[in-house]
Amino acid sequence: MTNKESIQEQMIKAVDTVRRTNPMAGSITNTVTISFVANAQLAVGGSAAMVYMPDEGEFVAKAGGAAYINVGTLLPIYEQTLPHIAKVLHAAGKPWVLDPVAIGIGSLRTQLLRKFKEYKPDVIRGNASEILALAGLWELDGGTAVSNVRGVDSTDVVSTAKTAAVALAKWTGGAVAVSGKTDLITNGSIIAFSHGGSHFMEIITGSGCSLGGVVAVYATAASPFIAALTATAVYNLAGVRAENRADGPASFQIQFLDELYKATAADIANNPFEIEEV
Amino acid sequence: MTNKESIQEQMIKAVDTVRRTNPMAGSITNTVTISFVANAQLAVGGSAAMVYMPDEGEFVAKAGGAAYINVGTLLPIYEQTLPHIAKVLHAAGKPWVLDPVAIGIGSLRTQLLRKFKEYKPDVIRGNASEILALAGLWELDGGTAVSNVRGVDSTDVVSTAKTAAVALAKWTGGAVAVSGKTDLITNGSIIAFSHGGSHFMEIITGSGCSLGGVVAVYATAASPFIAALTATAVYNLAGVRAENRADGPASFQIQFLDELYKATAADIANNPFEIEEV
Amino acid sequence: MTNKESIQEQMIKAVDTVRRTNPMAGSITNTVTISFVANAQLAVGGSAAMVYMPDEGEFVAKAGGAAYINVGTLLPIYEQTLPHIAKVLHAAGKPWVLDPVAIGIGSLRTQLLRKFKEYKPDVIRGNASEILALAGLWELDGGTAVSNVRGVDSTDVVSTAKTAAVALAKWTGGAVAVSGKTDLITNGSIIAFSHGGSHFMEIITGSGCSLGGVVAVYATAASPFIAALTATAVYNLAGVRAENRADGPASFQIQFLDELYKATAADIANNPFEIEEV
Repeated sequence: MTNKESIQEQMIKAVDTVRRTNPMAGSITNTVTISFVANAQLAVGGSAAMVYMPDEGEFVAKAGGAAYINVGTLLPIYEQTLPHIAKVLHAAGKPWVLDPVAIGIGSLRTQLLRKFKEYKPDVIRGNASEILALAGLWELDGGTAVSNVRGVDSTDVVSTAKTAAVALAKWTGGAVAVSGKTDLITNGSIIAFSHGGSHFMEIITGSGCSLGGVVAVYATAASPFIAALTATAVYNLAGVRAENRADGPASFQIQFLDELYKATAADIANNPFEIEEV
Repeated sequence: MTNKESIQEQMIKAVDTVRRTNPMAGSITNTVTISFVANAQLAVGGSAAMVYMPDEGEFVAKAGGAAYINVGTLLPIYEQTLPHIAKVLHAAGKPWVLDPVAIGIGSLRTQLLRKFKEYKPDVIRGNASEILALAGLWELDGGTAVSNVRGVDSTDVVSTAKTAAVALAKWTGGAVAVSGKTDLITNGSIIAFSHGGSHFMEIITGSGCSLGGVVAVYATAASPFIAALTATAVYNLAGVRAENRADGPASFQIQFLDELYKATAADIANNPFEIEEV
Repeated sequence: MTNKESIQEQMIKAVDTVRRTNPMAGSITNTVTISFVANAQLAVGGSAAMVYMPDEGEFVAKAGGAAYINVGTLLPIYEQTLPHIAKVLHAAGKPWVLDPVAIGIGSLRTQLLRKFKEYKPDVIRGNASEILALAGLWELDGGTAVSNVRGVDSTDVVSTAKTAAVALAKWTGGAVAVSGKTDLITNGSIIAFSHGGSHFMEIITGSGCSLGGVVAVYATAASPFIAALTATAVYNLAGVRAENRADGPASFQIQFLDELYKATAADIANNPFEIEEV
């Protein structure tokens, strides 16, 4: 399992299975990047469905192979929809991905994110500040009591979130992906560091949100750790390739989505990463 | 009327009238593809206005030459807004286009779509599964009792929805457009089959939604059947042209919108289609 | 202050400060162009945060250097959120930008826009019809009693809104930017006319909305007048440059965002404009 070749084989299998089966991963996500999330999910071979209402969330959660919850732009109805869908996913044993965007802003966000502790998201994806703050909110090792999140931006570097990421993964029994210059992905017992990406990913909205949606697509066909690592790898690969062809942030985003679509399973598995034991 | 040259003349007139008069077609549509819908409407020469509130829907319905209702991502307020605007449009004799996206998901969607039967949308646009399910919900010929819709995807081919499409068109007195590999457009007495498009249209979000918005733009200047056929034709034409210049789904979408803008009335009318009597 | 070189120096300083400090300007804005607004803010060097809930709006208002309120697509919660955040911004002395999109449509929009009079937005940006109608709603000189807004489109030319723009700027003590073929920016005592842009800006959604968001970014680092003029200048510059490389409206929008990112402070300050005393 901790063998690199074995991991790469599982990544290849995840990519190929998704391309062959076109799995659906529904989302409740923010309105800023909702289109980017859906198009990224489609580009890697998945299918998307976005909803707001509680019973629609339940339907999509049950019908899909996995689901994605992103708390970026909360609406009043989310107070009912989000706990309900998280409970349904957890009870059904369906993998789900949580993106705790902008944790610390507003009372509903805090209330919802606290509640998610018991529904154990299979993958948590965030920047370092978000991962530190979520571990703090859940009273786990390595967490911070006060959020350093500034709007949607991280003010911490990935390495500072290592203990928090491991603690979160141990709590959920799933995986945690910390996005940054070098990305950290852990299942609580091993840690992968994935390389690549582009500085343009900070100058467009939705790099992180759409990564979460793509993790959910791969989670229909692989373990949480492999899903998170595979999605991170294709993002890093597509980021490097797109930057080479981009003239600015908007052309980068177009090229990036095209590269997500064109990346082969072998390319993705061979994107540079290292493994270490926790 | 069933003469192909006469139909092409009407298509040319619709395209030219829209380009000359910049007609407004307001929308209540989903948040995933709302930007694509508006930009497609603008690209063909129309004007867009998107709203959520009941009285704003009424204003836009009355101010515009036609309107578009897409139930893709329902919000709680839609329970009031959608029946109200449909009633206003029907009472005012304003053409309106319905896209029954994801019919079968959730109770509010079913309730709203059932209600729309009495307000007779002038054009109904959907994939085969959605058309079959809507005919079923409205208890018309050829409908299916159970929805085969999977999220937003069709699991049925266009030809299976022919009877349902004709029945829906006869009920509304308008037209129905079934999107798929070959698109079917009918007014209940004749059927047009329109060719072209691109496989990329399945790998981006909003091909169908934005087509509905463009149908509404043409419905300000032509009969429901001509509006649906003209919009489908320019989509098929732009799809073919964009695919030739695209490197992946995102560059396809950009090229596609550019081609909507550049297509001439004659090009659109000459995009391949056949006619048959029902 | 009315010296052109002095104004250009302040524009250069605003651009450089934003690029160096990456200031956050939160928004409550419409769902059609929300992604464009955020990406334009990022392209010029700012940071974005979009929210809907009242307490989140308050958090973002206090955490950011400025804020942006765009009433394009109202949701029910806005009845609480918008007056609250405007009050917080005014009380905190934080610069904020108002875009009175589609003024005249619906009762909530009128109620909110009337209320904003007392919270004196530091910059008001709109097309001529919107500026005329807002001055009318606030019972200021040059306003019109009846809105000529057609959906989101202007039916009036910029010059007709000169008196209304000056009156609004005098009332708020800030600046007003009227977008059109030649853009007019005034602080109530001097008027700048800014040139450039592209006809494609009328054929895509969000040129105006995203300009408002970029004004808010510059308002974190400059006076309302300089912020509005600088944002208008970079829009006019990027519009000209993007049109030269565009093949249609969608490729224009991509090139436009890239050009926002690439424009230098000197380029922006040297974009053609004239000054006159009121």
